[in-house]
Amino acid sequence: TGRRSLSRSISQSSTDSYSSVYSDSSEDESSPREKQQKTSKGLSDFCIKNIKQAEFGRREIEIAEQEMPALMVLRKRAEGEKPLAGAKVVGCTHITAQTAVLIETLSILGAQCRWAACNIYSTQNAVAAALAEGGISVFAWKGESEDDFWWCIDRCVNLQSWQPNMILDDGGDMTHWIYKKYPSLFKRMKGIVEESVTGVHRLYQLSRAGKLCAPAMNVNDSVTKQKFDNLYCCRESILDGLKRTTDIMFGGKQVVVCGYGEVGKGCCAALKALGAIVYITEVDPICALQACMDGFRLVKLGEIIRQADMVITCTGNRNVVGKEHLDRMKNGCIVCNMGHSNTEIDVASLRAPELAWEHVRPLVDHVIWPDGKRIILLAEGRLLNLSCSTVPTFVLSITATTQALALIELFSAPEGRYKQDVYLLPKKMDEYVASLHLPTFDAHLTELTDEQAKYLGLNKHGPFKPSYYR
Amino acid sequence: TGRRSLSRSISQSSTDSYSSVYSDSSEDESSPREKQQKTSKGLSDFCIKNIKQAEFGRREIEIAEQEMPALMVLRKRAEGEKPLAGAKVVGCTHITAQTAVLIETLSILGAQCRWAACNIYSTQNAVAAALAEGGISVFAWKGESEDDFWWCIDRCVNLQSWQPNMILDDGGDMTHWIYKKYPSLFKRMKGIVEESVTGVHRLYQLSRAGKLCAPAMNVNDSVTKQKFDNLYCCRESILDGLKRTTDIMFGGKQVVVCGYGEVGKGCCAALKALGAIVYITEVDPICALQACMDGFRLVKLGEIIRQADMVITCTGNRNVVGKEHLDRMKNGCIVCNMGHSNTEIDVASLRAPELAWEHVRPLVDHVIWPDGKRIILLAEGRLLNLSCSTVPTFVLSITATTQALALIELFSAPEGRYKQDVYLLPKKMDEYVASLHLPTFDAHLTELTDEQAKYLGLNKHGPFKPSYYR
Amino acid sequence: TGRRSLSRSISQSSTDSYSSVYSDSSEDESSPREKQQKTSKGLSDFCIKNIKQAEFGRREIEIAEQEMPALMVLRKRAEGEKPLAGAKVVGCTHITAQTAVLIETLSILGAQCRWAACNIYSTQNAVAAALAEGGISVFAWKGESEDDFWWCIDRCVNLQSWQPNMILDDGGDMTHWIYKKYPSLFKRMKGIVEESVTGVHRLYQLSRAGKLCAPAMNVNDSVTKQKFDNLYCCRESILDGLKRTTDIMFGGKQVVVCGYGEVGKGCCAALKALGAIVYITEVDPICALQACMDGFRLVKLGEIIRQADMVITCTGNRNVVGKEHLDRMKNGCIVCNMGHSNTEIDVASLRAPELAWEHVRPLVDHVIWPDGKRIILLAEGRLLNLSCSTVPTFVLSITATTQALALIELFSAPEGRYKQDVYLLPKKMDEYVASLHLPTFDAHLTELTDEQAKYLGLNKHGPFKPSYYR
Amino acid sequence: TGRRSLSRSISQSSTDSYSSVYSDSSEDESSPREKQQKTSKGLSDFCIKNIKQAEFGRREIEIAEQEMPALMVLRKRAEGEKPLAGAKVVGCTHITAQTAVLIETLSILGAQCRWAACNIYSTQNAVAAALAEGGISVFAWKGESEDDFWWCIDRCVNLQSWQPNMILDDGGDMTHWIYKKYPSLFKRMKGIVEESVTGVHRLYQLSRAGKLCAPAMNVNDSVTKQKFDNLYCCRESILDGLKRTTDIMFGGKQVVVCGYGEVGKGCCAALKALGAIVYITEVDPICALQACMDGFRLVKLGEIIRQADMVITCTGNRNVVGKEHLDRMKNGCIVCNMGHSNTEIDVASLRAPELAWEHVRPLVDHVIWPDGKRIILLAEGRLLNLSCSTVPTFVLSITATTQALALIELFSAPEGRYKQDVYLLPKKMDEYVASLHLPTFDAHLTELTDEQAKYLGLNKHGPFKPSYYR
Repeated sequence: TGRRSLSRSISQSSTDSYSSVYSDSSEDESSPREKQQKTSKGLSDFCIKNIKQAEFGRREIEIAEQEMPALMVLRKRAEGEKPLAGAKVVGCTHITAQTAVLIETLSILGAQCRWAACNIYSTQNAVAAALAEGGISVFAWKGESEDDFWWCIDRCVNLQSWQPNMILDDGGDMTHWIYKKYPSLFKRMKGIVEESVTGVHRLYQLSRAGKLCAPAMNVNDSVTKQKFDNLYCCRESILDGLKRTTDIMFGGKQVVVCGYGEVGKGCCAALKALGAIVYITEVDPICALQACMDGFRLVKLGEIIRQADMVITCTGNRNVVGKEHLDRMKNGCIVCNMGHSNTEIDVASLRAPELAWEHVRPLVDHVIWPDGKRIILLAEGRLLNLSCSTVPTFVLSITATTQALALIELFSAPEGRYKQDVYLLPKKMDEYVASLHLPTFDAHLTELTDEQAKYLGLNKHGPFKPSYYR
Repeated sequence: TGRRSLSRSISQSSTDSYSSVYSDSSEDESSPREKQQKTSKGLSDFCIKNIKQAEFGRREIEIAEQEMPALMVLRKRAEGEKPLAGAKVVGCTHITAQTAVLIETLSILGAQCRWAACNIYSTQNAVAAALAEGGISVFAWKGESEDDFWWCIDRCVNLQSWQPNMILDDGGDMTHWIYKKYPSLFKRMKGIVEESVTGVHRLYQLSRAGKLCAPAMNVNDSVTKQKFDNLYCCRESILDGLKRTTDIMFGGKQVVVCGYGEVGKGCCAALKALGAIVYITEVDPICALQACMDGFRLVKLGEIIRQADMVITCTGNRNVVGKEHLDRMKNGCIVCNMGHSNTEIDVASLRAPELAWEHVRPLVDHVIWPDGKRIILLAEGRLLNLSCSTVPTFVLSITATTQALALIELFSAPEGRYKQDVYLLPKKMDEYVASLHLPTFDAHLTELTDEQAKYLGLNKHGPFKPSYYR
Repeated sequence: TGRRSLSRSISQSSTDSYSSVYSDSSEDESSPREKQQKTSKGLSDFCIKNIKQAEFGRREIEIAEQEMPALMVLRKRAEGEKPLAGAKVVGCTHITAQTAVLIETLSILGAQCRWAACNIYSTQNAVAAALAEGGISVFAWKGESEDDFWWCIDRCVNLQSWQPNMILDDGGDMTHWIYKKYPSLFKRMKGIVEESVTGVHRLYQLSRAGKLCAPAMNVNDSVTKQKFDNLYCCRESILDGLKRTTDIMFGGKQVVVCGYGEVGKGCCAALKALGAIVYITEVDPICALQACMDGFRLVKLGEIIRQADMVITCTGNRNVVGKEHLDRMKNGCIVCNMGHSNTEIDVASLRAPELAWEHVRPLVDHVIWPDGKRIILLAEGRLLNLSCSTVPTFVLSITATTQALALIELFSAPEGRYKQDVYLLPKKMDEYVASLHLPTFDAHLTELTDEQAKYLGLNKHGPFKPSYYR
Repeated sequence: TGRRSLSRSISQSSTDSYSSVYSDSSEDESSPREKQQKTSKGLSDFCIKNIKQAEFGRREIEIAEQEMPALMVLRKRAEGEKPLAGAKVVGCTHITAQTAVLIETLSILGAQCRWAACNIYSTQNAVAAALAEGGISVFAWKGESEDDFWWCIDRCVNLQSWQPNMILDDGGDMTHWIYKKYPSLFKRMKGIVEESVTGVHRLYQLSRAGKLCAPAMNVNDSVTKQKFDNLYCCRESILDGLKRTTDIMFGGKQVVVCGYGEVGKGCCAALKALGAIVYITEVDPICALQACMDGFRLVKLGEIIRQADMVITCTGNRNVVGKEHLDRMKNGCIVCNMGHSNTEIDVASLRAPELAWEHVRPLVDHVIWPDGKRIILLAEGRLLNLSCSTVPTFVLSITATTQALALIELFSAPEGRYKQDVYLLPKKMDEYVASLHLPTFDAHLTELTDEQAKYLGLNKHGPFKPSYYR
């Protein structure tokens, strides 16, 4: 959410509980590690839940492809030249239809890929099956144990005949595993691409300690991620997540949004637009002043808590909604988290003996006070939009394209352009990612004349922004 | 407007034609330089239009003070300690009620001030009179000649008994004058504060050439200026400027906004909100993609020009609206500029012999084609919001407070903190400026607990943003 | 949808196909008519799918009660006096959690109720079970045959020992059945309350023909229904219906909304607010001019069809989207109906041999052209919000409260106040319904002073609007 | 404002104080009644301020013509047939550029016109001059005495050789004068067209008393007036009126809007869109519930008054803002009226000896409490949008076209179609008015197919709405 958590342990990152409204029901309970499966072509270098789900997964991937135009263009433009020929990529990300489009794009561009999940809950089993059926060595299923988690990561790396030379990471676990367990491999890496706040933080730590052996690209702080991912994803998903879980009416509802960063801005825009009355809490005076100018009342949570119909956390901080607030909420108040991890609401305090829990729908719990008051807690305080709504594929496409370009850049950069340090994507590449997404809107970019470019002191093909622009 | 013009000459900056809906009628035509005036206390070290207007100007200043709460707080907080005692500030800015509040604040904080105008048209004569009556040595009037302009600047600096040690500049003309004409003075400067794109560009040039003798603060690129000034000023003033000049109805009007930077974003938000149908042109793919996601059609100007009811330029570029567009506009189309300087619309091309001009109201011209088609040109292509509307004092207060704090910081910084270079305001000071403006909204900031601050790795009193945040 | 369909046959009204995202899976296939069931108290005068679902249904009803504050207040206020004591109500409505709250309210107010479904698909079986378990004689299940449909209606009426004296109808089928089959019963009715366009039309026909034997209340044209039901229900449900079926991103999408009545206004407000670019088609110049003033481009469907990402019908008309439009849509275009019945999109034309259908998700079909183009058809052209989203309980509460008050008014009105005619609810009662819903928002109404009431020529307790206000 | 005032005397209606930001300065003080003026063609049957202003007035009329497309079309369509040939119209309206376009349209359609002002303050003298120069016998100037007012009206009627047969009235004073003073003339009238709430009320009184001798058309309650005039005029003018008088910034301001009828809805939409935080007060539960659903907090004025930055009255009621509220407002609070007449704010109570008034700008007064608190009162509580902003000509065009069509309808209707009663404009004519305004937006209406018209039971050319639609 744009703020840094400096204190998360490795294992925490990978087990953030994550669940989905699209749960697979009545599944086989056996562990994938115990059974041998084969694709229709006889391949077996993968480990997933059930290869028979491949066809359904393929359809989900095809649907995602339609909303990821930039990767499809990359496939066409770069297919002939195979810019990733020779790249051996180990990846560790959520395994979803969208990342499948990314992985298969890398493959089409010439890379060999082996993949694990960055979260024990988030794998879409059918998508993993489709990837395996398509020839990707994927090791991931929904509901891994922690032991499974590291086993899967290790399976990506630990081969005799095949040595990875690039890492695509989300959270830093793959990087950390190789750094710790395979230091000689780590030294031969050509590049690392990382997209999460946590993973980027770890990379900077390694860099400062002089232990980063390869250039790394910080995708998290790229313009496209900062300006699009948080704001637009949240604007699109907050209403959806609330409707699917509670069928709440928005008109006239009093909502407190904690935090007015990009996530909060996205949530507030959507809620206000549908007729909710939104109040903001903030710690940062700059965001606070923006909230005021944008027409929201800036309050402390304690001042407004009694009249709130909903409280939504978007801070990246912890214990923003504490027991003292939960105690004072009115009957029927909805509490949920759009921010970072599952720490923003003090859910632990609700596990008190005097409070009863009633599980009323998937991902919806009523917590019942002795006097009968009910608080409606969504996704047990985990991320609402990952758990209870879909995230727009098109916005994910922007980040995925950035990841692909970052890989290509690091792999094909001439010797010496990048040192053993953490880099931001060159502004021009950010602009290229954006331009690849414009045709979806039938949008027509204006081109500078030579005279105008000279007047502005710019190259007429960009970059158009100063490098510090964000 | 966020983009740089590298090719402006010094004199251009100071004569951007600037006029106001509040023109003083039936004025004395004699030059202020020719007559001797005295304040009620017998002072005469100033040169303005008419000291008798002081009372009216004082009322305008008092009205402005009500919307500039942060400077009033600074006066109270810092009055006892006089942090600027010993500072001798020469300033060169627009002379308006808002800058008067700034100048008098500096004076209350202990500074001695001498002031000139940064633009030959923009001085509010009554305000200049009030400043003079209050004891500030001000040299400025509306409608200076270029010779007057430099004469006024020189009068600020050229004294035997008084040597300035700080510069507050807007456009860089004061700095340049001292640099060129008084090099020994320039070397003894303690600090320079500059708020314009142009002036900042010149400072960086000096710095790169090794000729900058004093630390300079770049206020233009501070968060508060970038995030508030352009966006909110334009959102507030675009409707006002259009209504005051044309009484146009916004509902259902088709408007083309050229440029979707902060200025364009502010204009588009206001126009869409009032029921206009807005189209955007952009050269930069990132801003273009934002326009799309925000619900605007991205077009080239030529595609849409025939159906436009209004065309508004916000690019910082030149000749964005050219003769080829003007020729194809429909009868009654309104053309105006919210961007940079007066170059965005090719007004020169309208001075053709086959086109007739009819001056229908102050700042409104009809340009008439041979077939009778009329284009409505506002402010002859100069900045609409400076010419035809008021700019909200509260937003100007944010920049003015930043300027005051930058002066204090440079003046009172311990030896060695700042070198002979161009600096950005420390993030914490940006946050302080923002916090001083919150009480206006009765806004209540949340404070981090110790535990939360530790979790986030932040000092609980900020800064809250990474230094590159903008 | 505010427009009248004069040509619908009786059976059509009752079999509008209706399905739900909440389908009961793996259900018993036997007909409820063939089996005998008993409540826990041994009652058996009902016919539903499965009495064992009562507990789940009860929870859904309890959730609905929280969003229907006005009926809960009515229960409290009128409980002591039992204003419906002696009323024997036969009802024919959708059987949902919301209507269950209404039915049980009538019961608490003293009425005896027997109930059938007005649509063969729309019954929520668990809710019907809860009603039966609670002692209501309900005859309804999801997926009735047409024979079942009329059998259920007849079971409500055809008793020896019990003769209904009031009708609560939605569509007019109950009224028509009694009129045709039990004319002597019809003559003894004390009142009829009808809420649908179709049913109201039939009542006016009966009235004009001199065959209406009892006073009837037209709830469809009440202010509360007209001003709230369509506008706010659609504003709340359009985004939800689209997201649940297609996960579409709204930002920048080009959407054509056919019809700018209340339904269209609600859809457009929500879509525009989330960043879609909305075009309108209209036949009525008044609504067309409103669309223009509200900032939408008014077009003919044929002009815009090639660039549309979505087409949504809200007209109440038929074949608004015809084969000629469907043929010209671009690949991936979404087509759905928020209007009236299932006639607005010419779905029949898509059953052509050259077009392939692929059922991709519940209620989502891809129709595939020979060249591979896919059109995404939702709910097979039936009502999107009834099929694919939830409708906000709070808004339904407004109509349900109006129905309850209309029943009370007709039942308890003094002899002679109402004749054998069709009436609109008195304006004052509309205002009472509205006032009962204000506490939900913690809203505080201002009361006129005596002096003000006199000045306005109004009673200080209302009605405040002229009777023709709508 | 949609509510009726039953208690206004005749003279009150005509002297509602009305003033303008566009005041003519340094005017000749002599009474127009005392001097003889002649047009360039030698005509002298008029009485206005100064015929020499005709050229300036003509330009204002020409500008207005561009925004009144429907009247210009009427001129073209009906010019050949001269549908008003033989009509002798006496009119009594505001004399502005917009009504001038209406009057000259009537003239082009064949009518002979004589005109007076319906308000002693509202006449634009230059426009009156242009009308006179163009041959209309106009009797009106800005700043009439009450005696002047009735003298002007009488001059329209009291001729030997010319007897009016139609009345176009705004407020009912012309109608009343003829009814009282020239009863024989009154009996021979062919029709009366009235557009104000007050005038319509008087007509219904005459009708009920059996004293209405001619059919009258109630334009006030036509769809076009109700749905467009109040809502869109206020949405367009509220921001403009506030900016021109106070230069206030809207972002983050707390605003109380009293009344959520069409006027209030228009104001709230604009204010919220520009970032203000809006609270509503209402007496009517239906409007109150709409306010809640639209996302506004419904409060009593007393609850919120201490924190308000602005209070805007839109009620049609009196003393909505009383001394008890004014006493509790905070320093700098702005108070103004968008509603009805000048009664909504208890301005009289501010004329107390302990309060000082300071006139700071035209139409802006500071009222100063003994403790120094200042309340900013606009237009002395009179209508803000008439006094301090312009009203969009295009919206006025809708009403003006309705008036013209109503005159034609009454004048050319076959004997017996209209009796001596008050009529609403036929719905079809409302729709015609709307359709004449669509080309301005390049809007394309869809036409019903024969099949669709039959399905809907409508004539394919309308009317499309039931007659009670409003």
